Amino acid sequence: MQVMAEQTPSRRSECPIACSLDILGDKWTLVVLRDLLDGKTRFSEFERSPEGIPTNILTDRLRRLEATGLLKRVHRPPSTRFEYRPTQKGLDLRAVLLDLAAWGNRHLDDTWTPPSGYLTRTTQADQ
Amino acid sequence: MQVMAEQTPSRRSECPIACSLDILGDKWTLVVLRDLLDGKTRFSEFERSPEGIPTNILTDRLRRLEATGLLKRVHRPPSTRFEYRPTQKGLDLRAVLLDLAAWGNRHLDDTWTPPSGYLTRTTQADQ
Repeated sequence: MQVMAEQTPSRRSECPIACSLDILGDKWTLVVLRDLLDGKTRFSEFERSPEGIPTNILTDRLRRLEATGLLKRVHRPPSTRFEYRPTQKGLDLRAVLLDLAAWGNRHLDDTWTPPSGYLTRTTQADQ
Repeated sequence: MQVMAEQTPSRRSECPIACSLDILGDKWTLVVLRDLLDGKTRFSEFERSPEGIPTNILTDRLRRLEATGLLKRVHRPPSTRFEYRPTQKGLDLRAVLLDLAAWGNRHLDDTWTPPSGYLTRTTQADQ
């Protein structure tokens, strides 16, 4: 398994909000993380989500999530396949995701209401 | 004052996280909202933030925040100038911003730690 060092994008300031958005601030990264925390582990599972993420964008976002230390690829020998699993750094974004969901439910029409315990169907990579 | 109807970007799904990111998912929108909730009201104040937002991007994001109902422009007659003020919909993103800040403080090196009561230095537009 290739070991990638964590990469930090260039920073705009020392503000923790701006620095977080340097990593997370686009339309797809947190959608992929949502699926990861919902228990999806395989490329094809992320691809089948209702948002219809383009394959090249999914590939890029999974690489960036790995490069920034939010997920790890876990091999299950003797299979040559691997699974995507969140790190603690990735799991710690659950509060952000649930707050975004609560805000969407409150202020945007006709959004789906998640069940209690949402985004806990996963296993941490480091365990 | 021109009254803009609230505009909802085209949706990718009914997921409240994805729908929220249709509005908020970029590197700048939540940085501008951070400043708005920190009490900034004028274009020049947003422009002076340490991230160095380009003028054309700031103009675009302020328009989009108004179009999606997150801020209002408030006139103070007889002055012809106006102030940017958050709506309740905008204020309700404070939890997302504080969670992003907490995550950044925990996982990203050398980020600034906000004081308690951060992002409460503002007045709601509707009041």
